[in-house]
Amino acid sequence: MTQPKHNENPTWNRLIQHADIMNLPEKHLKHLLTDNNRLEKFSLKSSGIFYDFSRQRVDEKTMDHLIELAEFRKLKQRFDDMVSGKKVNVTENRPALHTATRNFSDDPVFVDGKDVMPSIRKVRKDIKAFVSTIHEGKITGSTGKPFNTVVVIGIGGSYLGTEFVANALHAMADKNMKMMFLSNVDIHNFGKIVSVIDIERTLWIVISKSYTTAETMANTNQVIAFIEAKGLDPAKHFVTVTSKGSPGDDPANPLLSSFHMFDFIGGRYSVTSAVGGLPLSLYLGYERFERFLKGAEEMDLHARHATERENIPLVAALISVWNNNFLSYPAQAIIPYASPLSKLSAHIQQLSMESNGKSVTEDGNSQDEPTGGIIFGEPGTNAQHSFFQLAHQGRPFPIDFIGVIHPHYKQYQNQSKGVTNHQELWSNLIAQPTALARGKEDANPAKSFSGNRPSSTILLNDLSPENIGRLLAFYEAKTVFEAFIWGINPFDQFGVELGKILATDIRKEMAMKNQDKSHTFENVDPITKFYLNTLFSDGL
Amino acid sequence: MTQPKHNENPTWNRLIQHADIMNLPEKHLKHLLTDNNRLEKFSLKSSGIFYDFSRQRVDEKTMDHLIELAEFRKLKQRFDDMVSGKKVNVTENRPALHTATRNFSDDPVFVDGKDVMPSIRKVRKDIKAFVSTIHEGKITGSTGKPFNTVVVIGIGGSYLGTEFVANALHAMADKNMKMMFLSNVDIHNFGKIVSVIDIERTLWIVISKSYTTAETMANTNQVIAFIEAKGLDPAKHFVTVTSKGSPGDDPANPLLSSFHMFDFIGGRYSVTSAVGGLPLSLYLGYERFERFLKGAEEMDLHARHATERENIPLVAALISVWNNNFLSYPAQAIIPYASPLSKLSAHIQQLSMESNGKSVTEDGNSQDEPTGGIIFGEPGTNAQHSFFQLAHQGRPFPIDFIGVIHPHYKQYQNQSKGVTNHQELWSNLIAQPTALARGKEDANPAKSFSGNRPSSTILLNDLSPENIGRLLAFYEAKTVFEAFIWGINPFDQFGVELGKILATDIRKEMAMKNQDKSHTFENVDPITKFYLNTLFSDGL
Repeated sequence: MTQPKHNENPTWNRLIQHADIMNLPEKHLKHLLTDNNRLEKFSLKSSGIFYDFSRQRVDEKTMDHLIELAEFRKLKQRFDDMVSGKKVNVTENRPALHTATRNFSDDPVFVDGKDVMPSIRKVRKDIKAFVSTIHEGKITGSTGKPFNTVVVIGIGGSYLGTEFVANALHAMADKNMKMMFLSNVDIHNFGKIVSVIDIERTLWIVISKSYTTAETMANTNQVIAFIEAKGLDPAKHFVTVTSKGSPGDDPANPLLSSFHMFDFIGGRYSVTSAVGGLPLSLYLGYERFERFLKGAEEMDLHARHATERENIPLVAALISVWNNNFLSYPAQAIIPYASPLSKLSAHIQQLSMESNGKSVTEDGNSQDEPTGGIIFGEPGTNAQHSFFQLAHQGRPFPIDFIGVIHPHYKQYQNQSKGVTNHQELWSNLIAQPTALARGKEDANPAKSFSGNRPSSTILLNDLSPENIGRLLAFYEAKTVFEAFIWGINPFDQFGVELGKILATDIRKEMAMKNQDKSHTFENVDPITKFYLNTLFSDGL
Repeated sequence: MTQPKHNENPTWNRLIQHADIMNLPEKHLKHLLTDNNRLEKFSLKSSGIFYDFSRQRVDEKTMDHLIELAEFRKLKQRFDDMVSGKKVNVTENRPALHTATRNFSDDPVFVDGKDVMPSIRKVRKDIKAFVSTIHEGKITGSTGKPFNTVVVIGIGGSYLGTEFVANALHAMADKNMKMMFLSNVDIHNFGKIVSVIDIERTLWIVISKSYTTAETMANTNQVIAFIEAKGLDPAKHFVTVTSKGSPGDDPANPLLSSFHMFDFIGGRYSVTSAVGGLPLSLYLGYERFERFLKGAEEMDLHARHATERENIPLVAALISVWNNNFLSYPAQAIIPYASPLSKLSAHIQQLSMESNGKSVTEDGNSQDEPTGGIIFGEPGTNAQHSFFQLAHQGRPFPIDFIGVIHPHYKQYQNQSKGVTNHQELWSNLIAQPTALARGKEDANPAKSFSGNRPSSTILLNDLSPENIGRLLAFYEAKTVFEAFIWGINPFDQFGVELGKILATDIRKEMAMKNQDKSHTFENVDPITKFYLNTLFSDGL
């Protein structure tokens, strides 16, 4: 589909003009917030999520223009195309069907004329069956001891989402199963893990679509060597999540089991597939994983069926683009006031920056507007005591605040200054968006706050599996809606290829040196040569 | 000291003009890198650190102008003032003497005519003595069992640096002492910790200069209530690190011991004081903590005595300001190719963003240039599989790559594709800066890389305590040099005050409601009222 450039897009140009108005002093948030009905006008509630954008730098006119942009860019149609199995990943000629992994309807989803739902249902069923045999101790390690630790070997999208969900639901992990992640090829990652696990009771899950990812293969080989050195049988300690027919799904390589990934689900969207499903079911039980899926499904249905104005991820995407392209904020923070969500920002960092950090439109033209922004974050109130100085008085950046109404650990009700810890947390969650928006003048300029710093606040009832599923699917849908506004493909990642190619050449040089100590690095540029020589030296 | 505005500063204006030149196509890094001597010209080695800025967008002229700026802003003089105890924290009328905490010379450092070094030496001696009695089991918990877990109760600067160092030196933690951090007031943080510790064997270290930090006090009270409910004596399980004479240093509140903090050391610069010293010595042994201090001292001496052109943190600060103000990059990533440095970016995020996210100069005038930038990061190669798509093809941001020549865990030497895991890691560490700098054209625009994306590479020989001290002190010195260039005070943090004031008002409303269920929130704005009502409701 050829699409108009932004500067040929009348709604885009209207928004540019409108941003001039919103930058006027009388449109400072402290003035906008004098409207007592502002929260009612600029908030949405659906599918277990409350989304408050009353502290964003928008007025009714802004939202009218943004909704026009949504219509002009056919966001709802494009989301529908994605969910229906159309080949929305145009550069790789594939659909993007992460939504199918949490589709519990009986409806088919056709790809090239074939319904993919039976294969997806089979993977779920296989996970459920396998996990119950592990939990019942029917499958054990090679010395007959039941497993008590799962280590995921996988990098990027093969673990970040799983790590986020596992942390979020940690308080429910009652299967006597620890979970760790061997992601980095750095030997410190491996060394630290093997120093704390009981190798006889450890199950390794190798996650790689192609089963060729350099880091994952190096780690897998390191683990196999370690297990064999201990006199154990690796085949009894490994399962894989990989494409059908990959080297990780080859009967010549014996394993406990193998679960299939599909080429129509990208890594960063894969936590609701077997990628997250197998480890999370081992850690939390399959039932809770299914509850998590059902929360995600509910948000998918909302994103697909709610009107533009009532559609939470769609409105969030519009505001994100408004902040990025019209108000020129290059970054965005995600600040959950809930420690179990501490890995949310790392996951969304990948999801958003890998999806939308693109230099070309999906039809291959260079972008005339920056797409994607920097995502970072830490939990509140920690972030307040870390980098919020800059948020209040330095370079401004929009923030997603996330609050949880009912925490776990309700038994700890000791009060300080008349409030519980959870209430103390909320006093800050409530105060920060207000302080950022309103600011405060002071005779001492060092104690003045210019205000007008935008944020949204997202509320969840609690940290149930359903709500974590909703939150995940909210950010997934927001990310793809942003891409549809920008006209880019959020499902490819060619930007990671050049580094891989150069690393391959360097690795070959190292391998030659390992083979032949007299090898010198004559085929590389002087800087590369310096680093290679340094690595093979005694040090600086 | 009244200082000229940037636009009245001739070197600043020369740099603005020079940036136009460096933005020309012929100054693309792929062209600059054709100079075979570029690494030699644009790298420095000293104090155990190699600093390569050959992939920054600078040429000889840029460095000349930047050095002029350093001279114009009297950076070396100002660093010397800081180290000598002058009241460089002008808004709070205090010195900033973190360097004194790792000063092992016999020279005095005078503050208001009094040598502060004897008090600093006494704290180190006290820590050494206390820690050895704990390690020898001479001091035990209230049931006579030796301690096996230390939990630091502290937030922001009271734990981030300690967490970074503890992670970095994890492989050396041979004192049978686990370490955890109760920072967030979120009850999930408390609940998770008490679910895994043996309370009889846990020592709690409360860290707060004033001993009034809301989060830290709420957590301390929660812990005391928990310990008492288990029938144990809190006095046998607590130590404090606090100001002399604070409520945490009051003989009326019995404790195992109390260690002093000084008002001339800010939280984010305090890891080499008792704030880091006590927990790190318990975790690693005092000797290793002292080695860490000696590495930091070496970097301090380098920062103080090396000429501008040879001064690693000074040059790094110049480049940071060059990138921020003249090339207009609003953010910077820190990517250590070493998992043990995974908490470095979180620590530097606070150090840098809280120090330099300021809207006024130190003499109280509003800034005419943005100061401070967004700092974020994850270890490589993880980051490559997460957000490096954006780094290569989206919105560019400068990167500090950090490499470690010799890893721990040398026993794991299994090779994949002819290289060890550590070599695989380095093949990426070497490839990424090159790929970012050079880019690559491709007939397919989706596979084209525009390049010209700047980075530095920092090398350490290994993860010794000395090198972690050097790295920490490098970033501390870089941060204050940046502030001295911008003419701001990097030692105050008034920007966090407004949120605290608003939170206090909200907390009072909650406390009233806890006292009297019929209390309604009539004194607050409609949005605050909505959130208060939601918190006290059954949910959405």
